[in-house]
Amino acid sequence: MAEFVLDPKLLSDTVHVADLRLSALLLMRDANYPWLILVPRRPDLVEVIDLDAAERTQLMAEVALASEALRQTVACDKLNVAALGNIVRQLHVHVIARRTGDAAWPRPVWGAVPVKPYPPGEAEALAKNLATQLG
Amino acid sequence: MAEFVLDPKLLSDTVHVADLRLSALLLMRDANYPWLILVPRRPDLVEVIDLDAAERTQLMAEVALASEALRQTVACDKLNVAALGNIVRQLHVHVIARRTGDAAWPRPVWGAVPVKPYPPGEAEALAKNLATQLG
Repeated sequence: MAEFVLDPKLLSDTVHVADLRLSALLLMRDANYPWLILVPRRPDLVEVIDLDAAERTQLMAEVALASEALRQTVACDKLNVAALGNIVRQLHVHVIARRTGDAAWPRPVWGAVPVKPYPPGEAEALAKNLATQLG
Repeated sequence: MAEFVLDPKLLSDTVHVADLRLSALLLMRDANYPWLILVPRRPDLVEVIDLDAAERTQLMAEVALASEALRQTVACDKLNVAALGNIVRQLHVHVIARRTGDAAWPRPVWGAVPVKPYPPGEAEALAKNLATQLG
């Protein structure tokens, strides 16, 4: 039986925040926007509908948890929630805190502007603050 | 108490497919991609987390229903599911059937290429086929 292995691009682009019941919660290394990614830890998932109904409900609960943690931790005018997967096929859900006037506003973030690296240690510090907010 | 009124831009850009328990299911008038939109029929919603937990579970069930109907009705290599709302603030969820090689592939669809009108009657015919698939 296949085991879950995090996609290498998701691994290299992110900092680990927490393991929720279903998903690994990750912070994108892009200082343009506070940007979380949920990756359900089940092998061979591509679409949201590859999850069964109970897992989909759990994924939605984790989207809500990530959204609340973001809003309590950073400035946020709008949340963007999306499962695209056109490039990285492993099922993952973006939860992004947008600000009016951020680098891509009002466009979607994907491919809009180059990634902006965090200063050393800042992504890890934000990940730790977010993990604390999750309780 | 405020009543739900569909955003005028969502109204003018779409064909009605069905009223699900929570959401109005709409088909975007863009022949580039089979593109559904779910709009929960509750007033004053902006974020997914403005719904309570039971409504979020229902929304997820309706995303799954729309996804399955799309895959049974049209060619589809990947589904894109997203709640953005940076321009139209009324809460709405996109469920889009993507094909490798479609007009925007592999980019997200929003703002990627100009809207392509359906030939007369074709959006309405597709909406009817999708409604039939919903059962």
